[in-house]
Amino acid sequence: METGESKITGYFAERSGLSASDFPIGIGDDMAQMAVGSVGSLLITTDMLLDGSHFDSACHSLEQIGYKSMAASLSDCAAMATVPFAAVVSVGLPAGFSEAALKSLHSGLLRAGEMFDCKLIGGDITSWRNEQGKLAVSVALVSKPGATAPIKRSGAKVGDIICVTGSLGASIQGKHISFTPRVKEALEISRLAAPTAMMDISDGLSTDLSHLCRSSGVGAVVYEKFIPVSQAAKEAENPLEAALNDGEDFELLFTVSKDRFQTLKKNWTMDTAITVVGEITTGGLKIVYGNGTEAELKPGGFDHIGG
Amino acid sequence: METGESKITGYFAERSGLSASDFPIGIGDDMAQMAVGSVGSLLITTDMLLDGSHFDSACHSLEQIGYKSMAASLSDCAAMATVPFAAVVSVGLPAGFSEAALKSLHSGLLRAGEMFDCKLIGGDITSWRNEQGKLAVSVALVSKPGATAPIKRSGAKVGDIICVTGSLGASIQGKHISFTPRVKEALEISRLAAPTAMMDISDGLSTDLSHLCRSSGVGAVVYEKFIPVSQAAKEAENPLEAALNDGEDFELLFTVSKDRFQTLKKNWTMDTAITVVGEITTGGLKIVYGNGTEAELKPGGFDHIGG
Repeated sequence: METGESKITGYFAERSGLSASDFPIGIGDDMAQMAVGSVGSLLITTDMLLDGSHFDSACHSLEQIGYKSMAASLSDCAAMATVPFAAVVSVGLPAGFSEAALKSLHSGLLRAGEMFDCKLIGGDITSWRNEQGKLAVSVALVSKPGATAPIKRSGAKVGDIICVTGSLGASIQGKHISFTPRVKEALEISRLAAPTAMMDISDGLSTDLSHLCRSSGVGAVVYEKFIPVSQAAKEAENPLEAALNDGEDFELLFTVSKDRFQTLKKNWTMDTAITVVGEITTGGLKIVYGNGTEAELKPGGFDHIGG
Repeated sequence: METGESKITGYFAERSGLSASDFPIGIGDDMAQMAVGSVGSLLITTDMLLDGSHFDSACHSLEQIGYKSMAASLSDCAAMATVPFAAVVSVGLPAGFSEAALKSLHSGLLRAGEMFDCKLIGGDITSWRNEQGKLAVSVALVSKPGATAPIKRSGAKVGDIICVTGSLGASIQGKHISFTPRVKEALEISRLAAPTAMMDISDGLSTDLSHLCRSSGVGAVVYEKFIPVSQAAKEAENPLEAALNDGEDFELLFTVSKDRFQTLKKNWTMDTAITVVGEITTGGLKIVYGNGTEAELKPGGFDHIGG
């Protein structure tokens, strides 16, 4: 199933007119890649976070909001196994937003950036003139390729193993505002096992796996029994639904050949769990439930366009 | 006078921890510069435009809004005489924003970018969940150095001539939504005359000249009789006030040695007017009125923090 958002992304990609020499990776991945001279390149991503949609200024501190805003873009860096370098931030402030409040927001942005030596190098401060205007924070983040080439969504091969980091679901209970982007994990996975495809899980496993499969022209089967359901999701009404469809897990989803997965498993020493959840197939998205029955895996995450 | 915005920018700059090797130009200029490898570099800027502050969705088409959003960042490229390369755009959409509306916004973004071969290479689409949420558009734009090094705000020297392009004031009457960023003019000025300092006029001549002077550690005197008051500003209640203090002129403000100004004048063949408005001095900001009296030139533009 093609969602409204992925359809419109395809529309934008068709009209982008990008040359592969200037832009080795264009619209449709977690970051776009810009060639610089004959040898260098930088990658770029952007995310906008809105009060009431991605955070709640009535519950979260401005420091937390700043942290999450930067962390969301850092998660895009992780998605491609690239090294965070620099960010610019633009903010739309509610009427009466104080300088002290802005400093709190800034300190959260810095805290997230400093985890990975990502510098805040510029920005734009502007304000709503209507009384209802709420805080909007947009981060554009630039990264450098790591030791390996950036990992795209489009390289998954039939027979590859599908893995996720950490655990999934019910991020809204707290993880979504305080997660650690999987930047270090991604670089280590990339170094150890050269994944064929990778992305971060921001719209839920079901939706993001469908994105990865469409980009790669493959299908997938996932197994309920393998899905690492988070503690918070276990307390939800339907833990499996939560793990499959909740947004903002900010975990990594990647595919890797069976051989390389063995190498990864053997050499993985980081605390973050890596879990096999399924396998890449020739077509279709399926889930095998715990009782052995099989069903179509429908993308159930949030779709900002027509969702 | 230090405004709220420039004070907070200084605060951010002090905490940025940028190394000059990675970031030859940091916080406080129109763009920040990122080194890539040993020879290359890219520059980056970001701007957020808000419904009711920078455009009015009741009056302006989405195509116009898209155009302005990209053009505002292109004006930052012009400010440093750099060559636009690529942009990413994040949007916060009101509830019920349609796919057709998004395509209109996109077409305006592309129209502005295409003037200077600046590609739209990525973005983020998200939506307000509260009914009052209005359209927010944030552009992050990447450029390359032109034939000369990027021109900063900080190089103005005592005795330099102060110039502006085009005419000033009352942009709100129409120019602010349809202006052509001075990218080509900036590159030509840079090539012909190597300005000592340059920026774009977004907050009004009085405010932006104060920024340039503070960055350069100099003062300035401007002459009322020389200021190119726009036709629209001539129809305002106080045309001089409009030309000095209205925001969003998106013209260039630059300083150049007297010798080089002669070269520029002799070789300038573009349609856009270049006008001498004053001279750089050792300290203080002054205006000489048409009747010969002198007064302090106070930054009168809009200040988003404590303004």
